[in-house]
Amino acid sequence: MSTSATLPDRKAAQDAGIIDCDIHPTPKPGGMKPYLAQRWQQHMAVYGGSGHGPHAGGAHPYPLYSPATSRRDAWPEGGGLPGSDLDFMRRQHLDPNNVSLGVLLPLFGAGSSRNQELAVAMASAINEWQLAEFISKEPRLRGSIQIPHEDAAASVAEIERHAGNPGFLQIQLGSATSEPIGRRRYWPIFEAAARVGLPLGMHVGGSSGFPRTGAGWPSFYHEAHYDLIHGMQAQVTSMVLEGVFERLPGLQVVLVEGGFAWAPSLGWRLDRLWARMRDEVPHCKRPPSEYIKQNFYFTTQPMEEPDVPEEILLTFEQIGWERLLFATDYPHWDFDDPRHALKVQLPEARRRMLFRENAARLYGLN
Amino acid sequence: MSTSATLPDRKAAQDAGIIDCDIHPTPKPGGMKPYLAQRWQQHMAVYGGSGHGPHAGGAHPYPLYSPATSRRDAWPEGGGLPGSDLDFMRRQHLDPNNVSLGVLLPLFGAGSSRNQELAVAMASAINEWQLAEFISKEPRLRGSIQIPHEDAAASVAEIERHAGNPGFLQIQLGSATSEPIGRRRYWPIFEAAARVGLPLGMHVGGSSGFPRTGAGWPSFYHEAHYDLIHGMQAQVTSMVLEGVFERLPGLQVVLVEGGFAWAPSLGWRLDRLWARMRDEVPHCKRPPSEYIKQNFYFTTQPMEEPDVPEEILLTFEQIGWERLLFATDYPHWDFDDPRHALKVQLPEARRRMLFRENAARLYGLN
Repeated sequence: MSTSATLPDRKAAQDAGIIDCDIHPTPKPGGMKPYLAQRWQQHMAVYGGSGHGPHAGGAHPYPLYSPATSRRDAWPEGGGLPGSDLDFMRRQHLDPNNVSLGVLLPLFGAGSSRNQELAVAMASAINEWQLAEFISKEPRLRGSIQIPHEDAAASVAEIERHAGNPGFLQIQLGSATSEPIGRRRYWPIFEAAARVGLPLGMHVGGSSGFPRTGAGWPSFYHEAHYDLIHGMQAQVTSMVLEGVFERLPGLQVVLVEGGFAWAPSLGWRLDRLWARMRDEVPHCKRPPSEYIKQNFYFTTQPMEEPDVPEEILLTFEQIGWERLLFATDYPHWDFDDPRHALKVQLPEARRRMLFRENAARLYGLN
Repeated sequence: MSTSATLPDRKAAQDAGIIDCDIHPTPKPGGMKPYLAQRWQQHMAVYGGSGHGPHAGGAHPYPLYSPATSRRDAWPEGGGLPGSDLDFMRRQHLDPNNVSLGVLLPLFGAGSSRNQELAVAMASAINEWQLAEFISKEPRLRGSIQIPHEDAAASVAEIERHAGNPGFLQIQLGSATSEPIGRRRYWPIFEAAARVGLPLGMHVGGSSGFPRTGAGWPSFYHEAHYDLIHGMQAQVTSMVLEGVFERLPGLQVVLVEGGFAWAPSLGWRLDRLWARMRDEVPHCKRPPSEYIKQNFYFTTQPMEEPDVPEEILLTFEQIGWERLLFATDYPHWDFDDPRHALKVQLPEARRRMLFRENAARLYGLN
């Protein structure tokens, strides 16, 4: 975390304060209890969760959400898991990295619980917990509305419950869902998002119950980490080809922690297919790449690192500079330090867009 | 198929004759029968196949291998499916496109049959059929050895049966397998390939029994066409991270019809993970991108088409010019015409590598 290697223009960009679009808070031990009804506290104690994510009590073949995947220096001195101590988060991240605004994305897999009543209760509890433990205590932090996404009606209710609260900036989804996310069963969620004027923040992860590759479960965390990105691409493809953005042209989707270097070639490929097979998807009226450019934002962490660092500039250009949002993924192991994540110098105007202005515009901040 | 728009240098490259690394032959009606034992002919008549691929008789949610996905002008006048009439193939493709050598990849999903005895019989029949109906009749065509890949021992036997025959240039695999292809159960196949000195030709497709996305089955062929590429990437990742190329450094894998613009960023990402987590995969001794650059070839069809056509040159450069093999996918609908597939002019030396020399070197041809 030394600033000694900081280049002058990097420091200048920092002075304006950055918007970090991916911070992961965690409850203190037992910290979620006050937000869960007695009925669900008892259920969790007796039955555990019912889902695929470890936080919902199910088995998971690799430690994607395990605290072991956090930065080794992110464990608060006072105990608890990384991301659970607000004061420590301020001292370790918000203050030294000059984060003027941080977007919280809790990763508890609530929406993936197979017990749908539990999913509703957990999503609601996580929302109340974010407000009480982080957002109301720290004006630099804003939350993401959790929803039990497999139950569209309950999701709409949860969205409407919180949409008027400026403490929430977006509606959170995972990249793994029971069916591809563009299918009709999920549309009430998209309609609610458009109605209340909030973007969707789709973070890699969640669980569908299916393996993440077309050839089953991978062997290593290392391998699984990349397979997550395929899931993100499949979800983008599904939303575009099912016509979600024809129905809701203003809907914006922020893709969080899914990489971005794949986005241009996904657009090329889908356009080429669409040129020949648009009669299969007549509800998708424009070349798919246009929706990708106009309805999606990409957070930068984990930063793509070409062998020739300057080549990342072409990727940024192809995606569109106004579509990129800086993120650190604090406190996870693959944290991108805002001072060192970019291996190239950007013109100051570009840097401001990436680190602050794009997010401020998207989230309606001043 | 008009040549009127042909630019002089494109014509010059053609004059040398191209190597087409992806041609799909199909049997005439009942044409596979002579190569199947009576026992299996009867089995197929009574029970049909037992697998996920339509040619093995199972259901498939989209027509990936359906003849309906062929070029509309590729149906032979004399009847039968596209790819089934050798003389028509000569007149429509080999002659006018100056194909001096074409690599056959039959796509019948034989290896994906759940009935493993049937898979063995089908792989063997397809090999005999290729030899008798195409390779022995047309010196410009060479085959790919089919294997019942879920049964490694039977696969090794089939490889050894044909490896000495110059009519076969490679060993064929699909991109969907019951488990990620780098897992130990498949290593005898890789060891046999290395022993007999043949590359693996991995064509997109096959079936694992799992949906191709981490969120289940997509809705459209259009969507599924891209999801195939994720499967290819997962297989590359699996082979690299399981250490296949540390054990067999000379093994070469040709990725057919899986696109290629994704390859550079896959390498960047895996390298970044490896820098931090190589202790999880100590058998993977070098940065993953090095194996991708040294052990994989990429066929060009379906050609990637950036909005700014010249940007494809950077992608070629990042992958390595010597790793690219031209392919048409004849007779399928997304056939890449050798005269028009590239939207940019290449220096003549690069063009020769792409259209001919790389494949000649890989396959040991003069």
